[in-house]
Amino acid sequence: MTSHREVVIAGGGVESLEVPAGWRLRVVNTLGGQVVDAWFFAAGDPTVHASMSHSRAALRTIRPTIGSQLVTRSREPIVTLVADTSGGVHDITMPPCDRYRYAQLGAPDHANCVDNLVRALSELGHDAPIVPDPFNLFQNSPVSGSGDITFEASTAGAGSFVELRAERDLTVVLSACPMDLMPINGGRPREVLVQVGPDEEEGR
Amino acid sequence: MTSHREVVIAGGGVESLEVPAGWRLRVVNTLGGQVVDAWFFAAGDPTVHASMSHSRAALRTIRPTIGSQLVTRSREPIVTLVADTSGGVHDITMPPCDRYRYAQLGAPDHANCVDNLVRALSELGHDAPIVPDPFNLFQNSPVSGSGDITFEASTAGAGSFVELRAERDLTVVLSACPMDLMPINGGRPREVLVQVGPDEEEGR
Repeated sequence: MTSHREVVIAGGGVESLEVPAGWRLRVVNTLGGQVVDAWFFAAGDPTVHASMSHSRAALRTIRPTIGSQLVTRSREPIVTLVADTSGGVHDITMPPCDRYRYAQLGAPDHANCVDNLVRALSELGHDAPIVPDPFNLFQNSPVSGSGDITFEASTAGAGSFVELRAERDLTVVLSACPMDLMPINGGRPREVLVQVGPDEEEGR
Repeated sequence: MTSHREVVIAGGGVESLEVPAGWRLRVVNTLGGQVVDAWFFAAGDPTVHASMSHSRAALRTIRPTIGSQLVTRSREPIVTLVADTSGGVHDITMPPCDRYRYAQLGAPDHANCVDNLVRALSELGHDAPIVPDPFNLFQNSPVSGSGDITFEASTAGAGSFVELRAERDLTVVLSACPMDLMPINGGRPREVLVQVGPDEEEGR
């Protein structure tokens, strides 16, 4: 893809991006090991969004792979994973980190992905909806065959990336997860690079 | 437990029940094989409810067992699984069935758990919130070690039950899932029995 817009998100920071229908969003794990909480909203209407539970039901898996489409609460496709050089370890079962989680960890005023989302939507003039569960890109929280969940360091290598194609006009919010009290980001939040551009495979 | 209130929910039907803090709710799978979608709301405030994603994170498992506490979006305990004679096969990863799912299955006007919930809350004078994911009691939709999800017939035997203790005053909505186009209810929705009473182990 040719990038038409490029944004660096600082470790622990957040950005929102408009991604027109048919365009791609690339999220590059610049330094490796960074989790990115990703929310996909219908442009202009944050009450319509990718729903992880409905996506799990539609995909019949908790491990999305290239070609997997996330769906809304009305079970309509909203975004498709179209490229992934990260090794494919992502999470669609966990909630975002929030002030309540950090309070449990003894850091009630810690930056968190929910506050990041609320601020990003607010800057766009939207009241935050009830916060949906995100697509936790690069998050390594495996579910074992016996159903147990662990939180492990992301295995995404430096420079690895995912690309997602918008199935309708989207507002995407990306939070470079600020968690540094559990190992998911390797202990230290790091910057990521985001690019948006047309899908060059579209006309082929 | 001694039952102070008893309700039979017809197959495909819905009921709401008030369960005071410390009391128990027993859900009996009278004829066996019936899935029951269960929502736990703070009494009088449906914006506070059991959240399956936050519960998965708190429990570190997708398979709740006796002693497991479900938590709210603020990560506070709201209900505890205290007894289970059903074999322990339940689901906390799937969304409820809804009109969109039945439309995909060619039956757009089919009864569904979401409409059941909305109607039950409406009868209590509440606008439905964004519908939370339910605790799908007795639902057999296993997640394999490779992350694949299948939808199988419930294995809950006739007369088997679960008991849940309210950790605060609750409004509980139970939908005896009307799904008859997939095998989860053994092909035919059946009635269940619900009992509410004080926790007799409380004072021991």
